Amino acid sequence: MDAANPPTVSRREVFRAGAAIAVAGVAATKAQTAHGAAVSLSPGATVLFQGDSITYAGRLFNKQIANDFQGLGCGYALITTAQLMDTYPTLRIQCHNRGISGNAISDLANRWQEDALDLEPDLLSILVGVNDVWYKLSGKSDGTVDSYESGYRELLERTRAALSETTLVVCEPFVFRTGSVGDSWMPEINAHRAAAKRVADEAGAIWVPYQTAFNDAITEANPVEYWSSDGVHPTLAGHALMARTWLDATGLAK
Amino acid sequence: MDAANPPTVSRREVFRAGAAIAVAGVAATKAQTAHGAAVSLSPGATVLFQGDSITYAGRLFNKQIANDFQGLGCGYALITTAQLMDTYPTLRIQCHNRGISGNAISDLANRWQEDALDLEPDLLSILVGVNDVWYKLSGKSDGTVDSYESGYRELLERTRAALSETTLVVCEPFVFRTGSVGDSWMPEINAHRAAAKRVADEAGAIWVPYQTAFNDAITEANPVEYWSSDGVHPTLAGHALMARTWLDATGLAK
Repeated sequence: MDAANPPTVSRREVFRAGAAIAVAGVAATKAQTAHGAAVSLSPGATVLFQGDSITYAGRLFNKQIANDFQGLGCGYALITTAQLMDTYPTLRIQCHNRGISGNAISDLANRWQEDALDLEPDLLSILVGVNDVWYKLSGKSDGTVDSYESGYRELLERTRAALSETTLVVCEPFVFRTGSVGDSWMPEINAHRAAAKRVADEAGAIWVPYQTAFNDAITEANPVEYWSSDGVHPTLAGHALMARTWLDATGLAK
Repeated sequence: MDAANPPTVSRREVFRAGAAIAVAGVAATKAQTAHGAAVSLSPGATVLFQGDSITYAGRLFNKQIANDFQGLGCGYALITTAQLMDTYPTLRIQCHNRGISGNAISDLANRWQEDALDLEPDLLSILVGVNDVWYKLSGKSDGTVDSYESGYRELLERTRAALSETTLVVCEPFVFRTGSVGDSWMPEINAHRAAAKRVADEAGAIWVPYQTAFNDAITEANPVEYWSSDGVHPTLAGHALMARTWLDATGLAK
Protein backbone atom coordinates (compact mmCIF):
# COMPACT_ATOMS: atom_id res chain seq x y z
CA MET A 1 0.00 0.00 0.00
CA ASP A 2 1.20 3.49 -0.83
CA ALA A 3 1.26 5.25 2.54
CA ALA A 4 1.12 8.66 0.90
CA ASN A 5 -1.97 7.69 -1.08
CA PRO A 6 -3.98 5.26 0.98
CA PRO A 7 -7.00 3.79 -0.76
CA THR A 8 -10.13 5.77 -0.14
CA VAL A 9 -12.30 3.81 2.25
CA SER A 10 -15.18 5.50 3.98
CA ARG A 11 -15.79 5.12 7.69
CA ARG A 12 -18.90 3.23 6.81
CA GLU A 13 -17.02 0.67 4.71
CA VAL A 14 -14.48 0.14 7.46
CA PHE A 15 -17.21 -0.18 10.04
CA ARG A 16 -19.28 -2.52 7.93
CA ALA A 17 -16.32 -4.76 7.28
CA GLY A 18 -15.99 -5.18 11.03
CA ALA A 19 -19.69 -5.62 11.47
CA ALA A 20 -19.81 -8.20 8.72
CA ILE A 21 -17.22 -10.25 10.57
CA ALA A 22 -19.00 -9.86 13.88
CA VAL A 23 -22.36 -10.96 12.54
CA ALA A 24 -21.33 -13.18 9.65
CA GLY A 25 -24.24 -15.03 8.20
CA VAL A 26 -26.89 -12.97 9.94
CA ALA A 27 -29.56 -11.80 7.54
CA ALA A 28 -30.91 -8.29 7.72
CA THR A 29 -34.35 -7.81 9.18
CA LYS A 30 -37.00 -6.52 6.85
CA ALA A 31 -40.14 -5.36 8.50
CA GLN A 32 -43.34 -4.42 6.77
CA THR A 33 -45.41 -1.70 8.35
CA ALA A 34 -49.16 -1.48 8.36
CA HIS A 35 -48.92 1.21 5.69
CA GLY A 36 -46.73 -0.80 3.39
CA ALA A 37 -43.51 1.00 4.20
CA ALA A 38 -40.60 -1.36 4.60
CA VAL A 39 -37.73 -0.78 7.00
CA SER A 40 -34.70 -2.94 6.58
CA LEU A 41 -31.95 -2.99 9.18
CA SER A 42 -28.74 -4.57 7.99
CA PRO A 43 -26.15 -6.05 10.32
CA GLY A 44 -24.20 -3.23 11.94
CA ALA A 45 -26.74 -0.62 10.82
CA THR A 46 -26.31 2.88 12.22
CA VAL A 47 -29.48 4.49 13.59
CA LEU A 48 -29.54 8.22 14.34
CA PHE A 49 -32.14 10.11 16.37
CA GLN A 50 -32.13 13.81 15.57
CA GLY A 51 -34.20 16.65 16.94
CA ASP A 52 -34.72 19.05 19.82
CA SER A 53 -35.00 18.71 23.59
CA ILE A 54 -37.53 15.88 23.36
CA THR A 55 -34.91 13.79 21.59
CA TYR A 56 -32.02 15.18 23.66
CA ALA A 57 -33.57 14.04 26.98
CA GLY A 58 -30.54 14.87 29.11
CA ARG A 59 -27.87 13.08 27.05
CA LEU A 60 -24.23 13.79 27.83
CA PHE A 61 -22.41 15.51 24.98
CA ASN A 62 -19.10 13.85 25.79
CA LYS A 63 -20.61 10.38 25.31
CA GLN A 64 -20.88 10.05 21.57
CA ILE A 65 -20.14 6.37 21.10
CA ALA A 66 -23.02 4.23 19.90
CA ASN A 67 -25.51 2.65 22.30
CA ASP A 68 -24.19 4.55 25.32
CA PHE A 69 -26.80 5.04 28.08
CA GLN A 70 -25.73 8.53 28.90
CA GLY A 71 -25.06 9.45 25.30
CA LEU A 72 -28.62 8.44 24.42
CA GLY A 73 -30.26 10.46 27.20
CA CYS A 74 -33.17 9.09 29.19
CA GLY A 75 -36.02 9.47 26.69
CA TYR A 76 -37.55 7.76 23.69
CA ALA A 77 -34.19 7.42 21.91
CA LEU A 78 -32.86 5.32 24.80
CA ILE A 79 -36.02 3.25 25.20
CA THR A 80 -36.29 2.64 21.46
CA THR A 81 -32.62 1.65 21.24
CA ALA A 82 -33.02 -0.72 24.19
CA GLN A 83 -36.00 -2.36 22.49
CA LEU A 84 -34.14 -2.67 19.18
CA MET A 85 -31.08 -4.19 20.87
CA ASP A 86 -33.29 -6.66 22.72
CA THR A 87 -35.38 -7.56 19.66
CA TYR A 88 -32.52 -7.82 17.16
CA PRO A 89 -29.44 -8.81 19.18
CA THR A 90 -27.65 -10.45 16.27
CA LEU A 91 -27.83 -7.32 14.10
CA ARG A 92 -25.48 -5.38 16.41
CA ILE A 93 -27.07 -2.07 15.52
CA GLN A 94 -25.34 1.19 16.44
CA CYS A 95 -27.64 3.90 17.78
CA HIS A 96 -26.85 7.57 18.33
CA ASN A 97 -28.71 10.58 19.69
CA ARG A 98 -27.80 14.06 18.50
CA GLY A 99 -30.85 15.98 19.68
CA ILE A 100 -30.19 19.47 21.09
CA SER A 101 -32.57 21.50 23.23
CA GLY A 102 -34.22 24.47 21.62
CA ASN A 103 -33.50 23.43 18.05
CA ALA A 104 -35.79 24.53 15.26
CA ILE A 105 -35.47 23.39 11.66
CA SER A 106 -32.84 26.06 10.88
CA ASP A 107 -30.69 24.88 13.80
CA LEU A 108 -30.70 21.35 12.45
CA ALA A 109 -29.65 22.64 9.02
CA ASN A 110 -26.75 24.55 10.56
CA ARG A 111 -25.25 21.46 12.14
CA TRP A 112 -26.47 18.80 9.69
CA GLN A 113 -23.12 17.94 8.12
CA GLU A 114 -21.30 17.04 11.32
CA ASP A 115 -24.27 15.87 13.37
CA ALA A 116 -26.09 13.83 10.75
CA LEU A 117 -24.43 13.29 7.36
CA ASP A 118 -20.98 12.57 8.78
CA LEU A 119 -22.45 9.75 10.88
CA GLU A 120 -23.67 8.08 7.67
CA PRO A 121 -26.80 6.67 9.28
CA ASP A 122 -28.62 3.78 7.66
CA LEU A 123 -31.77 4.97 9.39
CA LEU A 124 -32.24 8.64 10.26
CA SER A 125 -35.13 9.68 12.49
CA ILE A 126 -36.02 13.37 12.85
CA LEU A 127 -38.39 15.09 15.28
CA VAL A 128 -38.50 18.87 14.92
CA GLY A 129 -41.15 21.57 14.85
CA VAL A 130 -42.35 22.48 18.32
CA ASN A 131 -39.67 25.14 18.70
CA ASP A 132 -40.57 26.59 15.29
CA VAL A 133 -44.09 27.02 16.65
CA TRP A 134 -42.91 28.43 19.97
CA TYR A 135 -40.47 30.90 18.41
CA LYS A 136 -43.14 32.13 16.03
CA LEU A 137 -45.76 32.60 18.75
CA SER A 138 -43.33 34.31 21.11
CA GLY A 139 -41.85 36.54 18.42
CA LYS A 140 -38.39 35.02 18.93
CA SER A 141 -38.06 34.44 15.20
CA ASP A 142 -39.70 35.51 11.97
CA GLY A 143 -40.18 31.89 10.91
CA THR A 144 -43.48 30.78 9.37
CA VAL A 145 -45.01 27.43 8.58
CA ASP A 146 -43.85 28.01 5.00
CA SER A 147 -40.24 28.54 6.04
CA TYR A 148 -40.49 25.45 8.28
CA GLU A 149 -41.76 23.41 5.36
CA SER A 150 -39.19 24.68 2.86
CA GLY A 151 -36.39 24.29 5.42
CA TYR A 152 -37.47 20.74 6.20
CA ARG A 153 -37.74 19.91 2.49
CA GLU A 154 -34.23 21.23 1.84
CA LEU A 155 -32.87 19.23 4.78
CA LEU A 156 -34.36 16.00 3.46
CA GLU A 157 -33.23 16.68 -0.10
CA ARG A 158 -29.72 17.40 1.13
CA THR A 159 -29.80 14.18 3.12
CA ARG A 160 -31.03 12.16 0.16
CA ALA A 161 -28.32 13.64 -2.06
CA ALA A 162 -25.60 12.67 0.40
CA LEU A 163 -27.06 9.36 1.61
CA SER A 164 -29.13 7.84 -1.16
CA GLU A 165 -29.77 4.53 0.62
CA THR A 166 -30.67 5.90 4.04
CA THR A 167 -34.12 5.15 5.42
CA LEU A 168 -35.73 8.41 6.52
CA VAL A 169 -38.15 8.60 9.43
CA VAL A 170 -40.06 11.83 9.99
CA CYS A 171 -41.80 12.16 13.35
CA GLU A 172 -44.94 14.23 13.72
CA PRO A 173 -44.40 17.29 15.93
CA PHE A 174 -46.87 17.44 18.81
CA VAL A 175 -48.04 19.41 21.83
CA PHE A 176 -50.39 18.87 24.76
CA ARG A 177 -52.97 21.39 25.93
CA THR A 178 -51.40 22.02 29.32
CA GLY A 179 -48.60 24.04 30.89
CA SER A 180 -47.55 26.87 28.59
CA VAL A 181 -49.44 25.46 25.62
CA GLY A 182 -52.64 27.42 25.17
CA ASP A 183 -55.28 27.70 22.49
CA SER A 184 -53.12 29.84 20.22
CA TRP A 185 -50.73 26.92 19.77
CA MET A 186 -53.23 24.54 18.23
CA PRO A 187 -53.70 25.98 14.71
CA GLU A 188 -49.93 26.51 14.52
CA ILE A 189 -48.98 22.98 15.55
CA ASN A 190 -51.62 21.61 13.21
CA ALA A 191 -50.17 23.57 10.29
CA HIS A 192 -46.66 22.40 11.16
CA ARG A 193 -47.84 18.79 11.48
CA ALA A 194 -49.37 19.00 8.00
CA ALA A 195 -46.19 20.54 6.59
CA ALA A 196 -44.04 17.80 8.11
CA LYS A 197 -46.35 15.17 6.65
CA ARG A 198 -46.06 16.70 3.18
CA VAL A 199 -42.26 16.73 3.18
CA ALA A 200 -42.20 13.23 4.65
CA ASP A 201 -44.39 11.91 1.83
CA GLU A 202 -42.35 13.71 -0.81
CA ALA A 203 -39.15 12.20 0.56
CA GLY A 204 -40.61 8.71 0.85
CA ALA A 205 -40.03 8.82 4.59
CA ILE A 206 -41.69 6.68 7.24
CA TRP A 207 -44.20 8.80 9.18
CA VAL A 208 -44.50 8.45 12.94
CA PRO A 209 -47.90 9.86 14.03
CA TYR A 210 -47.07 11.15 17.50
CA GLN A 211 -49.81 13.78 17.84
CA THR A 212 -52.37 11.24 16.73
CA ALA A 213 -51.03 8.64 19.16
CA PHE A 214 -51.09 11.08 22.08
CA ASN A 215 -54.56 12.31 21.19
CA ASP A 216 -55.75 8.70 21.31
CA ALA A 217 -53.94 8.05 24.59
CA ILE A 218 -55.50 10.96 26.47
CA THR A 219 -58.49 9.62 28.39
CA GLU A 220 -60.32 10.31 31.62
CA ALA A 221 -58.14 7.76 33.44
CA ASN A 222 -54.99 9.11 31.79
CA PRO A 223 -55.41 12.82 31.25
CA VAL A 224 -52.89 15.08 29.57
CA GLU A 225 -50.73 15.30 32.69
CA TYR A 226 -49.94 11.59 32.57
CA TRP A 227 -48.21 12.23 29.25
CA SER A 228 -46.75 15.73 29.71
CA SER A 229 -46.43 18.14 32.58
CA ASP A 230 -45.49 21.25 30.61
CA GLY A 231 -47.29 20.77 27.31
CA VAL A 232 -44.15 20.24 25.27
CA HIS A 233 -41.99 17.59 26.94
CA PRO A 234 -43.41 14.09 27.49
CA THR A 235 -43.26 12.36 30.84
CA LEU A 236 -41.58 8.97 31.02
CA ALA A 237 -44.95 7.44 30.12
CA GLY A 238 -45.02 9.73 27.10
CA HIS A 239 -41.52 8.69 26.05
CA ALA A 240 -42.52 5.04 26.43
CA LEU A 241 -45.50 5.67 24.17
CA MET A 242 -43.20 7.43 21.69
CA ALA A 243 -40.85 4.44 21.59
CA ARG A 244 -43.74 2.04 20.98
CA THR A 245 -45.29 4.28 18.32
CA TRP A 246 -41.92 4.61 16.55
CA LEU A 247 -41.36 0.86 16.58
CA ASP A 248 -44.88 0.25 15.27
CA ALA A 249 -44.57 2.87 12.52
CA THR A 250 -41.24 1.53 11.30
CA GLY A 251 -42.45 -2.05 11.57
CA LEU A 252 -39.54 -2.85 13.87
CA ALA A 253 -41.62 -3.73 16.94
CA LYS A 254 -41.24 -7.18 18.39
CA MET B 1 -60.48 18.72 63.32
CA ASP B 2 -58.20 19.27 66.30
CA ALA B 3 -55.18 21.00 64.82
CA ALA B 4 -53.00 20.03 67.77
CA ASN B 5 -53.90 16.38 67.37
CA PRO B 6 -54.46 15.68 63.72
CA PRO B 7 -55.68 12.21 62.92
CA THR B 8 -52.88 9.83 62.13
CA VAL B 9 -52.87 9.14 58.43
CA SER B 10 -49.88 7.53 56.81
CA ARG B 11 -48.36 8.93 53.65
CA ARG B 12 -49.53 5.81 51.91
CA GLU B 13 -53.13 6.33 52.92
CA VAL B 14 -53.03 9.94 51.76
CA PHE B 15 -51.45 8.94 48.50
CA ARG B 16 -53.81 6.07 47.91
CA ALA B 17 -56.81 8.26 48.53
CA GLY B 18 -55.60 10.50 45.72
CA ALA B 19 -54.78 7.58 43.50
CA ALA B 20 -58.18 6.06 44.12
CA ILE B 21 -59.78 9.24 42.85
CA ALA B 22 -57.50 9.45 39.85
CA VAL B 23 -58.13 5.89 38.76
CA ALA B 24 -61.57 5.28 40.15
CA GLY B 25 -63.03 2.06 38.95
CA VAL B 26 -59.78 0.69 37.58
CA ALA B 27 -59.14 -2.84 38.76
CA ALA B 28 -55.72 -3.92 39.89
CA THR B 29 -53.72 -6.10 37.54
CA LYS B 30 -52.99 -9.59 38.75
CA ALA B 31 -50.42 -11.42 36.74
CA GLN B 32 -49.57 -15.07 37.07
CA THR B 33 -45.98 -16.05 36.46
CA ALA B 34 -44.82 -19.28 34.91
CA HIS B 35 -43.85 -20.49 38.38
CA GLY B 36 -47.19 -19.76 39.91
CA ALA B 37 -46.10 -16.61 41.72
CA ALA B 38 -48.68 -13.88 41.44
CA VAL B 39 -47.84 -10.19 41.27
CA SER B 40 -50.65 -7.80 41.82
CA LEU B 41 -50.24 -4.10 41.14
CA SER B 42 -52.98 -1.96 42.63
CA PRO B 43 -53.85 1.48 41.31
CA GLY B 44 -51.24 3.94 42.52
CA ALA B 45 -48.84 1.16 43.53
CA THR B 46 -45.34 2.22 44.54
CA VAL B 47 -42.51 0.22 42.97
CA LEU B 48 -38.98 0.52 44.34
CA PHE B 49 -35.77 -0.68 42.68
CA GLN B 50 -32.97 -1.13 45.20
CA GLY B 51 -29.39 -2.22 44.76
CA ASP B 52 -25.91 -1.19 43.69
CA SER B 53 -24.42 0.55 40.65
CA ILE B 54 -26.28 -1.70 38.20
CA THR B 55 -29.55 -0.36 39.57
CA TYR B 56 -28.18 3.18 40.10
CA ALA B 57 -27.26 3.60 36.40
CA GLY B 58 -26.40 7.29 36.67
CA ARG B 59 -29.55 8.51 38.42
CA LEU B 60 -29.55 12.02 39.87
CA PHE B 61 -29.85 12.06 43.66
CA ASN B 62 -31.78 15.32 43.70
CA LYS B 63 -34.55 13.82 41.54
CA GLN B 64 -36.45 11.64 43.96
CA ILE B 65 -39.99 12.08 42.73
CA ALA B 66 -41.61 9.03 41.18
CA ASN B 67 -41.19 8.16 37.48
CA ASP B 68 -38.58 10.85 36.88
CA PHE B 69 -36.23 10.05 33.98
CA GLN B 70 -33.16 11.35 35.67
CA GLY B 71 -34.18 10.02 39.07
CA LEU B 72 -34.50 6.55 37.58
CA GLY B 73 -31.09 6.57 35.88
CA CYS B 74 -30.59 5.15 32.41
CA GLY B 75 -30.64 1.41 33.10
CA TYR B 76 -33.06 -1.43 33.70
CA ALA B 77 -35.02 0.50 36.34
CA LEU B 78 -35.87 3.17 33.76
CA ILE B 79 -36.61 0.71 30.96
CA THR B 80 -38.76 -1.46 33.23
CA THR B 81 -40.66 1.57 34.53
CA ALA B 82 -41.26 2.79 30.97
CA GLN B 83 -42.62 -0.62 30.01
CA LEU B 84 -44.87 -0.76 33.08
CA MET B 85 -46.21 2.75 32.44
CA ASP B 86 -46.91 1.87 28.84
CA THR B 87 -48.50 -1.50 29.62
CA TYR B 88 -50.62 -0.36 32.59
CA PRO B 89 -51.36 3.33 32.00
CA THR B 90 -54.54 3.34 34.05
CA LEU B 91 -52.79 2.02 37.18
CA ARG B 92 -50.73 5.20 37.58
CA ILE B 93 -47.87 3.35 39.24
CA GLN B 94 -45.16 5.27 41.06
CA CYS B 95 -41.62 3.98 40.46
CA HIS B 96 -38.44 4.90 42.32
CA ASN B 97 -34.78 3.99 42.07
CA ARG B 98 -32.59 4.08 45.18
CA GLY B 99 -29.60 2.08 43.94
CA ILE B 100 -26.18 3.34 45.04
CA SER B 101 -22.86 2.40 43.47
CA GLY B 102 -20.61 0.11 45.44
CA ASN B 103 -23.29 -1.12 47.81
CA ALA B 104 -22.99 -4.55 49.37
CA ILE B 105 -25.69 -6.15 51.52
CA SER B 106 -24.45 -4.34 54.67
CA ASP B 107 -24.72 -0.97 52.91
CA LEU B 108 -28.34 -1.63 52.04
CA ALA B 109 -29.04 -2.55 55.67
CA ASN B 110 -27.49 0.71 56.87
CA ARG B 111 -29.82 2.85 54.76
CA TRP B 112 -32.85 0.56 54.62
CA GLN B 113 -35.19 2.60 56.81
CA GLU B 114 -34.99 5.84 54.83
CA ASP B 115 -34.26 4.39 51.40
CA ALA B 116 -36.73 1.49 51.42
CA LEU B 117 -39.14 1.15 54.34
CA ASP B 118 -40.03 4.85 54.50
CA LEU B 119 -41.11 4.73 50.85
CA GLU B 120 -43.67 2.03 51.76
CA PRO B 121 -43.29 0.23 48.43
CA ASP B 122 -46.01 -2.15 47.28
CA LEU B 123 -43.40 -3.93 45.21
CA LEU B 124 -39.75 -3.93 46.29
CA SER B 125 -37.10 -5.25 43.92
CA ILE B 126 -33.56 -5.86 45.18
CA LEU B 127 -30.37 -6.64 43.26
CA VAL B 128 -27.28 -6.97 45.44
CA GLY B 129 -24.31 -9.31 45.70
CA VAL B 130 -21.65 -8.54 43.13
CA ASN B 131 -19.91 -6.07 45.45
CA ASP B 132 -19.99 -8.62 48.26
CA VAL B 133 -18.07 -10.93 45.93
CA TRP B 134 -15.71 -8.21 44.79
CA TYR B 135 -14.91 -6.97 48.30
CA LYS B 136 -14.25 -10.52 49.46
CA LEU B 137 -11.93 -11.33 46.56
CA SER B 138 -10.05 -8.05 46.84
CA GLY B 139 -9.72 -8.22 50.62
CA LYS B 140 -11.70 -4.99 51.03
CA SER B 141 -14.00 -6.64 53.56
CA ASP B 142 -14.10 -9.75 55.70
CA GLY B 143 -17.54 -10.67 54.36
CA THR B 144 -18.31 -14.25 53.42
CA VAL B 145 -21.10 -15.95 51.56
CA ASP B 146 -22.55 -16.83 54.98
CA SER B 147 -22.58 -13.22 56.12
CA TYR B 148 -24.13 -12.22 52.79
CA GLU B 149 -26.85 -14.81 53.25
CA SER B 150 -27.58 -13.93 56.88
CA GLY B 151 -27.50 -10.20 56.10
CA TYR B 152 -29.88 -10.68 53.20
CA ARG B 153 -32.20 -12.84 55.33
CA GLU B 154 -32.28 -10.19 58.06
CA LEU B 155 -33.02 -7.48 55.50
CA LEU B 156 -35.99 -9.39 54.10
CA GLU B 157 -37.30 -10.30 57.56
CA ARG B 158 -37.06 -6.67 58.61
CA THR B 159 -38.89 -5.66 55.45
CA ARG B 160 -41.61 -8.25 55.99
CA ALA B 161 -42.08 -7.09 59.59
CA ALA B 162 -42.51 -3.47 58.53
CA LEU B 163 -44.42 -4.03 55.28
CA SER B 164 -46.42 -7.22 55.56
CA GLU B 165 -48.24 -6.79 52.24
CA THR B 166 -45.31 -5.79 50.07
CA THR B 167 -44.42 -8.01 47.14
CA LEU B 168 -40.72 -8.84 47.32
CA VAL B 169 -38.61 -9.41 44.21
CA VAL B 170 -35.09 -10.78 44.64
CA CYS B 171 -32.84 -10.50 41.59
CA GLU B 172 -30.08 -13.01 40.98
CA PRO B 173 -26.62 -11.44 41.23
CA PHE B 174 -24.54 -12.06 38.11
CA VAL B 175 -21.20 -11.51 36.42
CA PHE B 176 -19.72 -11.97 32.97
CA ARG B 177 -16.36 -13.58 32.27
CA THR B 178 -14.72 -10.49 30.84
CA GLY B 179 -13.02 -7.31 32.02
CA SER B 180 -11.91 -7.63 35.62
CA VAL B 181 -13.96 -10.77 36.20
CA GLY B 182 -11.65 -13.76 36.09
CA ASP B 183 -11.92 -17.44 36.98
CA SER B 184 -11.69 -16.79 40.71
CA TRP B 185 -15.00 -14.95 40.61
CA MET B 186 -17.06 -17.86 39.36
CA PRO B 187 -17.30 -20.11 42.44
CA GLU B 188 -17.94 -17.02 44.55
CA ILE B 189 -20.72 -15.62 42.41
CA ASN B 190 -22.25 -19.08 42.18
CA ALA B 191 -22.28 -19.40 45.97
CA HIS B 192 -23.82 -15.93 46.32
CA ARG B 193 -26.45 -16.73 43.67
CA ALA B 194 -27.43 -19.85 45.60
CA ALA B 195 -27.59 -17.90 48.87
CA ALA B 196 -29.80 -15.23 47.32
CA LYS B 197 -32.10 -17.94 45.94
CA ARG B 198 -32.45 -19.53 49.39
CA VAL B 199 -33.41 -16.29 51.12
CA ALA B 200 -35.76 -15.42 48.27
CA ASP B 201 -37.55 -18.74 48.62
CA GLU B 202 -37.76 -18.42 52.40
CA ALA B 203 -39.27 -14.95 52.07
CA GLY B 204 -41.74 -15.98 49.38
CA ALA B 205 -40.10 -13.54 46.99
CA ILE B 206 -40.31 -13.55 43.21
CA TRP B 207 -36.95 -14.70 41.78
CA VAL B 208 -35.49 -12.98 38.73
CA PRO B 209 -32.91 -15.32 37.15
CA TYR B 210 -30.45 -12.85 35.68
CA GLN B 211 -27.33 -15.03 35.57
CA THR B 212 -29.32 -17.77 33.89
CA ALA B 213 -30.79 -15.31 31.38
CA PHE B 214 -27.38 -13.87 30.52
CA ASN B 215 -25.81 -17.31 30.22
CA ASP B 216 -28.52 -18.21 27.74
CA ALA B 217 -28.07 -14.94 25.83
CA ILE B 218 -24.33 -15.32 25.30
CA THR B 219 -23.82 -16.86 21.87
CA GLU B 220 -21.29 -16.76 19.07
CA ALA B 221 -23.20 -13.91 17.39
CA ASN B 222 -23.63 -12.11 20.71
CA PRO B 223 -20.59 -12.79 22.85
CA VAL B 224 -20.11 -11.53 26.39
CA GLU B 225 -19.07 -8.06 25.20
CA TYR B 226 -22.51 -7.41 23.71
CA TRP B 227 -23.92 -7.68 27.22
CA SER B 228 -21.12 -6.24 29.37
CA SER B 229 -17.84 -4.49 28.69
CA ASP B 230 -16.33 -4.77 32.17
CA GLY B 231 -17.76 -8.03 33.50
CA VAL B 232 -19.97 -6.40 36.12
CA HIS B 233 -22.04 -3.65 34.49
CA PRO B 234 -24.40 -4.53 31.63
CA THR B 235 -24.39 -2.63 28.36
CA LEU B 236 -27.66 -1.06 27.24
CA ALA B 237 -28.48 -4.38 25.55
CA GLY B 238 -27.88 -6.05 28.91
CA HIS B 239 -30.15 -3.60 30.70
CA ALA B 240 -32.83 -4.21 28.08
CA LEU B 241 -32.53 -7.95 28.70
CA MET B 242 -32.75 -7.29 32.44
CA ALA B 243 -35.97 -5.31 32.03
CA ARG B 244 -37.53 -8.05 29.92
CA THR B 245 -36.41 -10.80 32.31
CA TRP B 246 -37.81 -8.86 35.29
CA LEU B 247 -41.15 -8.32 33.55
CA ASP B 248 -41.33 -11.99 32.59
CA ALA B 249 -40.43 -13.19 36.08
CA THR B 250 -43.00 -10.97 37.79
CA GLY B 251 -45.61 -11.82 35.19
CA LEU B 252 -46.01 -8.13 34.40
CA ALA B 253 -44.84 -8.30 30.79
CA LYS B 254 -47.22 -7.15 28.11
